[in-house]
Amino acid sequence: MPKPTLPQGTRDFNAETVYKRQYIFSTIRSVFERYGYQPLETPSFEQLETLMGKYGDEGDQLIFKILNNGLNHPDKKQKVQDAFDQVMAGKSSKDITERALRYDLTIPFARYVATHHGQLTMPFKRFQMQPVWRADRPQKGRYREFYQCDADVVGSKSLLNEVEFIHMYDDVFSALQLKVEIRINHRQILAALAEACGGEQWMTPITVAIDKLEKVGLEQVKSELISKGVSEDAWKKIQAYLEISGTNEEKITAAEQILGNIPSAQQAIADFKQILQFPSLTNLKQELMIDFTLARGLNYYTGCIFEIKSKEVAMGSIGGGGRYDNLTGSFGVPGVPGAGISFGVDRVYDVIEELKRFPTSVQAGTQVLFFHLEPEASLVAFNLMQQLRKSGVRAEMFHESAKFDKQFKYAEKKQIPYVIILGAKEVETNSCVVKNLTTGQQESINQSQLLQYVFEG
Amino acid sequence: MPKPTLPQGTRDFNAETVYKRQYIFSTIRSVFERYGYQPLETPSFEQLETLMGKYGDEGDQLIFKILNNGLNHPDKKQKVQDAFDQVMAGKSSKDITERALRYDLTIPFARYVATHHGQLTMPFKRFQMQPVWRADRPQKGRYREFYQCDADVVGSKSLLNEVEFIHMYDDVFSALQLKVEIRINHRQILAALAEACGGEQWMTPITVAIDKLEKVGLEQVKSELISKGVSEDAWKKIQAYLEISGTNEEKITAAEQILGNIPSAQQAIADFKQILQFPSLTNLKQELMIDFTLARGLNYYTGCIFEIKSKEVAMGSIGGGGRYDNLTGSFGVPGVPGAGISFGVDRVYDVIEELKRFPTSVQAGTQVLFFHLEPEASLVAFNLMQQLRKSGVRAEMFHESAKFDKQFKYAEKKQIPYVIILGAKEVETNSCVVKNLTTGQQESINQSQLLQYVFEG
Repeated sequence: MPKPTLPQGTRDFNAETVYKRQYIFSTIRSVFERYGYQPLETPSFEQLETLMGKYGDEGDQLIFKILNNGLNHPDKKQKVQDAFDQVMAGKSSKDITERALRYDLTIPFARYVATHHGQLTMPFKRFQMQPVWRADRPQKGRYREFYQCDADVVGSKSLLNEVEFIHMYDDVFSALQLKVEIRINHRQILAALAEACGGEQWMTPITVAIDKLEKVGLEQVKSELISKGVSEDAWKKIQAYLEISGTNEEKITAAEQILGNIPSAQQAIADFKQILQFPSLTNLKQELMIDFTLARGLNYYTGCIFEIKSKEVAMGSIGGGGRYDNLTGSFGVPGVPGAGISFGVDRVYDVIEELKRFPTSVQAGTQVLFFHLEPEASLVAFNLMQQLRKSGVRAEMFHESAKFDKQFKYAEKKQIPYVIILGAKEVETNSCVVKNLTTGQQESINQSQLLQYVFEG
Repeated sequence: MPKPTLPQGTRDFNAETVYKRQYIFSTIRSVFERYGYQPLETPSFEQLETLMGKYGDEGDQLIFKILNNGLNHPDKKQKVQDAFDQVMAGKSSKDITERALRYDLTIPFARYVATHHGQLTMPFKRFQMQPVWRADRPQKGRYREFYQCDADVVGSKSLLNEVEFIHMYDDVFSALQLKVEIRINHRQILAALAEACGGEQWMTPITVAIDKLEKVGLEQVKSELISKGVSEDAWKKIQAYLEISGTNEEKITAAEQILGNIPSAQQAIADFKQILQFPSLTNLKQELMIDFTLARGLNYYTGCIFEIKSKEVAMGSIGGGGRYDNLTGSFGVPGVPGAGISFGVDRVYDVIEELKRFPTSVQAGTQVLFFHLEPEASLVAFNLMQQLRKSGVRAEMFHESAKFDKQFKYAEKKQIPYVIILGAKEVETNSCVVKNLTTGQQESINQSQLLQYVFEG
């Protein structure tokens, strides 16, 4: 019989990995909570119609659809056959599949807000940490099941939210002992570039081209845009803009000189100025950096956009977000503005792992192994163990009476730092032997002292 | 546009519910850890072949299957059409669906153990708390997505595990402030009844009939079994067995008198005696009760079986488990015995909710709302808030400058217990006003004192 396999692009997480991941999740969660964000959990699958058409044609293709149950019911035969023909034609049909796995956390959140709109206290701040599924081709660092970690606020246009997002990124990555750049830009300044080229229709070509700047260099971006019809004059503006450098204040001044006559740029610059006046931002542990080359592909952003890059490990962004105007419009509830940020937990994990910065204390393995010796003695030992457990110590007794060797080996393999030996001899003297396997030291103590014993690690 | 809906049998969990559920999960988790169990997480979907045939015909029908992507590729046309014909005939086919959502946590665990068999330190103790999906008809208390919470040990036949399971149930339900009966029985004593009737083939009819005893009464059980061909003599034995009462010790003695001549009953009785000799079991907070009418439908149990009933709320079992012989046999790895228990988290939730026993401290909502007043003052307030947050206080500032009324209303709706008022006047005097909305009391304090302020709740 062949060994069973895992579906491509999915993973088992063993105890060590689960604890490391929990450390990341709980660090993020506690920051979210300190900023007034509250948890929401939505179902793993949604009605297919809730998801379809929200992620572009490419995204639609990557949605995992769930087969309806009971397709072989005789009454349904013709209906199902027709539906199947649709599927074969690349469409989807309710008669074959009416549910699909969550593709991100944003659309389920939008669905939730649209449904409960009347009852929510606005501004409504929620965070959500749940897996999502995408039928992407698996590759290094890209999985078909992975967690997203989002915080969003809706019903508020205040830039206070942007300031808090910067602090939240600062707090999370500082708590995780990582060094990052918090890069910030504004979609309205990109809109100003588009206007300088001739109008809104330039927004997508410009953001797409700028998005590649780091990879392909300025010359390539130029030839791409020129070939698409950008004038040399307009390109000069874009180039001057892309070459802006200096402190955040110097960058703002430079941008003002290049684009300050265009209203959308004025708005972006005013927003930047308002954000930077918050004195608390001068105390960040991480680097906050206006990055005019930041574009972010997603078209629904309308204001500030964020991206986080590790300063220690070469890797794509490990977080991102931005402001959007109309979260729930596609569900018939217009006029709900908002902003949100998200953490790339799998990449954050890889960064911490590469830097070996997971604290050993995140593991919660067994601290103490009680040896299993003579039957009578094992009952005494078990009783003691129960008292230790009640006081919070993680303890085990070896499952059966066995030679010392075998029991020591079990402790070693499971990296249990302490063993307690309590045999017939110790029962007589009301004692037990505590051995620290890390140092090799052992001592005989009274059983009643055991509860006060401090087990490190 | 119609409001978007949730798929039948699924739920959103708002913040209050998430926190209450987390309280249950973390209580169970910390007990699991204290007993040496370690977390495992497996993917939400498995290869369909891993799941099919493991849950009986009825179970197979309830598995959610995932439609393969790219079905409309022209090269696949004939293959997919053939596969579809199979689906219409009630079979499943890899060319249409090769993955399916997890139906329980046991089979993924078995798959994991079979795959990693050589590398695991035995006995291997794992716990797993993840959602599972079943295409069951939704009804009150039954959902299509729900969490299971399992702890299993494999590679050990020791009854120490059963003793620990009893303690784990005791610890969890005591920590949750619930009163329960921990009911225990043994599949071998049911096997002895079957032998008394004529042989193994009676095992299923007898367990099925006994399973209904509480619902239908003794007479109905009798007529069902007699109609199936159980002799009057054999029924007398069964009846005497089902009517056993008294203390656990008295029950064992009575069972010995009725069935003691049958080897499988002897084994069950020996197991009970060995378990009950553990002195720690006399200190349980919950009631441990041998219940000879306990059958548990699942056929894979071979030794002790467990079931938990609330003593305060009428409801089905809120936990269960037992010993099995051959976890990984169907994956080609024979000879892996084990035992496990599980918690019915949704029902436990309902019990605690009905009894109003969720501690209010499980909620982690905002503790302090800073009013948003004059622009200058709000910057000072924001700075102070950042210091509070760094010390762990969950705080928010109202997102924009607004009338007192509106800001108070926001605090009330969100049940934020404290507001801090810091306007132009307070900036001048370096002070701020702290108002406790629960008591209505307010006091003006120096801003530097705020960091030492104790915010209750």
